[in-house]
Amino acid sequence: MPATNRPTSRSRLLTATEDMLRESGMAGTGIKDVVARSGAPIGSLYHHFPRGKMQLVSEALAIHAERFPRLLERFFDGKRSAAAALDALFTTAAAEFERQGAAKGCAIGAVALDLVASDADIRRVCHQAFDDWAASLAPRLPFPDAATRRSFAVAIVVALEGAFVLARAAGDGEPFREAGRWIVAALSATTSRRRIKRRRSSRKPTTAP
Amino acid sequence: MPATNRPTSRSRLLTATEDMLRESGMAGTGIKDVVARSGAPIGSLYHHFPRGKMQLVSEALAIHAERFPRLLERFFDGKRSAAAALDALFTTAAAEFERQGAAKGCAIGAVALDLVASDADIRRVCHQAFDDWAASLAPRLPFPDAATRRSFAVAIVVALEGAFVLARAAGDGEPFREAGRWIVAALSATTSRRRIKRRRSSRKPTTAP
Repeated sequence: MPATNRPTSRSRLLTATEDMLRESGMAGTGIKDVVARSGAPIGSLYHHFPRGKMQLVSEALAIHAERFPRLLERFFDGKRSAAAALDALFTTAAAEFERQGAAKGCAIGAVALDLVASDADIRRVCHQAFDDWAASLAPRLPFPDAATRRSFAVAIVVALEGAFVLARAAGDGEPFREAGRWIVAALSATTSRRRIKRRRSSRKPTTAP
Repeated sequence: MPATNRPTSRSRLLTATEDMLRESGMAGTGIKDVVARSGAPIGSLYHHFPRGKMQLVSEALAIHAERFPRLLERFFDGKRSAAAALDALFTTAAAEFERQGAAKGCAIGAVALDLVASDADIRRVCHQAFDDWAASLAPRLPFPDAATRRSFAVAIVVALEGAFVLARAAGDGEPFREAGRWIVAALSATTSRRRIKRRRSSRKPTTAP
């Protein structure tokens, strides 16, 4: 392979960081281990990432976050219903989780649970990622009003992140399948009623024309 | 306060570990920080926990896990419906998360996302905790068959864990409220559909109860 096609030190460092964040979160991702895993020369780290670990983690999370909207396009392909697309999303997540040895979660989720007060910038990256994910899901959902589309999109992201947590503990992808069944059931049941109405602090299904 | 009523070094070390796990997960919980935070004499650590950090983390997670069934009794009090109990569970989780400065997640969840291959014993503790939580939720759910009760119980645990992830990133408890709305909607919609199904054989409901 010609040298120009090989991943650069910069991209190798980011890939190693993303992988380590998925495996063991923020505190479990040590700079020395990232460098060793990437195979990049140690000197390249502060050359490419002068702000050190925080910069490396921020950029790796941003790369990780961008995968989700691209993934959605694969499932919401315009041919299947939203329910079928969500079913495929959760069952594929289960299979992929198992294919990767049940050892890799979501980098954003793992970091979010490790945040300390001094990680304000990283917290903003995580928040932005979940926000972007909900925003890319919402327009694909078959509810007539934007507020319900947005609310259900957040519930889907919550279900995916929660499934990663239980799946890591279980050592298999079953929590994705279980969560996916209820996401599809909730979608089917509530769209057949057409509307979720805001009532005081909680929303409950009601009969809509 | 008489000396006999003061928490022992052992319990202070466990409380400090539980708090640190909730804040920043497994790798973020250093032995030295635990000892400093607990105020316990350094010598007491290996006296009470001869197997070191792994024993401390295992026991702190077991204590954390036991809180959930007790919490459920508060909400499923025999007076309110399952839907009302779940609504109260999620809205209280949101308020409590915010009251604690939006900085404390679920210790089990934070550890589950930090696990490395060598943490097999800790993984089992996490898995057992989620399993016990689903088992304590299932009998309280109004589905006629055990498999559906169990499945929805897992979905509720997934929703709570996912809400912790998004709430840590957002810095507020809103993801709990959002997830709770959909858990209640899914429960109401699927249980009312079952009632209608039993009445009218196989038609989808077009009206709410």
